[in-house]
Amino acid sequence: MMAADGGQEEEEQEEEQEEGEHNEVVCLPALSRVAVCGGTHGNELSGVHLVRERLKEKKQKVDEEEDDVVSVVNILTNPRAVQQCRRYTETDLNRCFTRATLSSTVSDRTPYEIVRSQELNSLLGPKGSPQAVDLVCDLHNTTANMGLCVIAYSDSDWICLHIFKYLQHHMSDVPVRYIHFDLPCREAYSLDSLGKHGFALEIGPQPHGVVRSNIYTYMKTGVELMLDWVRLFNSGTVFEGGSVEVYTMVSAIDYPREPHTHNIMAAIHPQLQDQDFCLLRPNDPIFETFSGATVRYQGPEPLYAFFINECAYYEKGIALSLARRRRVEIPAIQMKSGLEHRGDEGTSEEEAD
Amino acid sequence: MMAADGGQEEEEQEEEQEEGEHNEVVCLPALSRVAVCGGTHGNELSGVHLVRERLKEKKQKVDEEEDDVVSVVNILTNPRAVQQCRRYTETDLNRCFTRATLSSTVSDRTPYEIVRSQELNSLLGPKGSPQAVDLVCDLHNTTANMGLCVIAYSDSDWICLHIFKYLQHHMSDVPVRYIHFDLPCREAYSLDSLGKHGFALEIGPQPHGVVRSNIYTYMKTGVELMLDWVRLFNSGTVFEGGSVEVYTMVSAIDYPREPHTHNIMAAIHPQLQDQDFCLLRPNDPIFETFSGATVRYQGPEPLYAFFINECAYYEKGIALSLARRRRVEIPAIQMKSGLEHRGDEGTSEEEAD
Repeated sequence: MMAADGGQEEEEQEEEQEEGEHNEVVCLPALSRVAVCGGTHGNELSGVHLVRERLKEKKQKVDEEEDDVVSVVNILTNPRAVQQCRRYTETDLNRCFTRATLSSTVSDRTPYEIVRSQELNSLLGPKGSPQAVDLVCDLHNTTANMGLCVIAYSDSDWICLHIFKYLQHHMSDVPVRYIHFDLPCREAYSLDSLGKHGFALEIGPQPHGVVRSNIYTYMKTGVELMLDWVRLFNSGTVFEGGSVEVYTMVSAIDYPREPHTHNIMAAIHPQLQDQDFCLLRPNDPIFETFSGATVRYQGPEPLYAFFINECAYYEKGIALSLARRRRVEIPAIQMKSGLEHRGDEGTSEEEAD
Repeated sequence: MMAADGGQEEEEQEEEQEEGEHNEVVCLPALSRVAVCGGTHGNELSGVHLVRERLKEKKQKVDEEEDDVVSVVNILTNPRAVQQCRRYTETDLNRCFTRATLSSTVSDRTPYEIVRSQELNSLLGPKGSPQAVDLVCDLHNTTANMGLCVIAYSDSDWICLHIFKYLQHHMSDVPVRYIHFDLPCREAYSLDSLGKHGFALEIGPQPHGVVRSNIYTYMKTGVELMLDWVRLFNSGTVFEGGSVEVYTMVSAIDYPREPHTHNIMAAIHPQLQDQDFCLLRPNDPIFETFSGATVRYQGPEPLYAFFINECAYYEKGIALSLARRRRVEIPAIQMKSGLEHRGDEGTSEEEAD
């Protein structure tokens, strides 16, 4: 506890002292090249329109001074699906970025999205190589009431965690959370795994095929804050450490289904609908069948529910996902000066092919 | 104003007297055959699952006593679109029920939905003929925050208006409104126009491709109340007259679009989003562009906005629809006894082919 006047300065001094004492500032390479991607799912419209808007603004600014602190590329990643306003045309693009799929042989009959994933790998990767862009931010929407989520494959990628901390600190109108998908780089299947660092920026609730101005604005603000952070980082700012909450995905639950038709027999229970990130306890209502019966959660332990009733997951057999929550300590970080640009942590470790 | 005790009885007595004095009870033919239809749009899931559930229940009840007051048929109307969880496969089925399309010649290249509309016309119609079912209730969902709406082509179909009044009276958890599309029977394009009487039961907000238990339950309750009303009507109950609010559609507004690409340049303004059936006045905010500017309503008169940000209407060039609201007096009605079954009012007037 400290007095209100001058509290922040005192705090900063204290932390500087601590840093000095413990020499805790982790130095990481600059983030020179950043990709902002939208339309990986063609019917998730906030990202589609935000990337289009950013491309338009960039065109208009062509004569202005170039940003020399960071180079940003904006990409509409699945233009065919965007054109058709569908998630994908032949197969889900955002499941095509495993090492196996990226290195598979292409023929005339290869689904469009697999061909496209390899194109994007050439453009933004190759995945796990020194040539890969430094940071990929892939824009997504969900029908679930998730607020804004940073979704990444690591709980020790200090870049992703610091960007998350920065977004959480600066966005007051929407809850901001960090979801950790615990998969090795090799099995990481989503577009953001192409970068040295990467995450999905997932925002909801927004129906697919619809753009809601509030959700669009959260996404726009999120991207601008992320780029502000990168510019501050690349300019030498020291970012204080601290602790953040991380939700690590542990399992998923499917809808009750008819044995023969595989049709669903229930919807998410009204008490659970829209309650993403609530703690689901054994015996809590989870589904309501179409004849009105309540189905309860049978799991052995309380877990946090998220992606509750996401439209695109019906076909994947997921009614909701479950996570464990814990606090993760993150160190103070700062850009490493000099030309060394790799090998410090996270996704760049296992890149040798 | 009357005392709380015994008020209802007094009211009933008074109204009976009035009916007696003015001889105002309109007599209409029984509604012997009713169709409950879902999946006309394959991704509007409340109707899909409600019809499936009703079909399952009916199968289970096969040995029980048959309902002799009304015969109800439950139909999944666009099974191919349901299978693919899309609005339609080739063309919007719910625009195929005009006289022109129903009488068009079919070839191998005719879109599936046109072929299907003619099948449904044989099953439930022929449209405008004495053989047509008495009442069609077609189940729909919208991403707009519309609550429950009865949508019909007439503001003087006493059956539809009395069913609406009954739903409005009995459903307290959701707003219930009546929308009037002012088109002659010949041009009426939707499935419900096949019946002697018919309406769409439109409920939202629900994302397409998703089922939300609260919306499903409203729909289920709405259908059960509608069938209760039909049974009461067919059993000779006199339904009191009164006045109801009717929203008559007068125009629609498209999103601001890029001239060349036809891409939208704005979303519904956050102040208007989810405010279906609010009065939109000249100069009120209507859109927010993707660069953050406000676009205002330029119309000459205040009108009621509805279908605000309906997903499926992006491709139809409709960001929202506008209506005039007025009170409509409806007479007391009662089933006509005897065998005369037609020619009293509404959609059955102009059936001669």
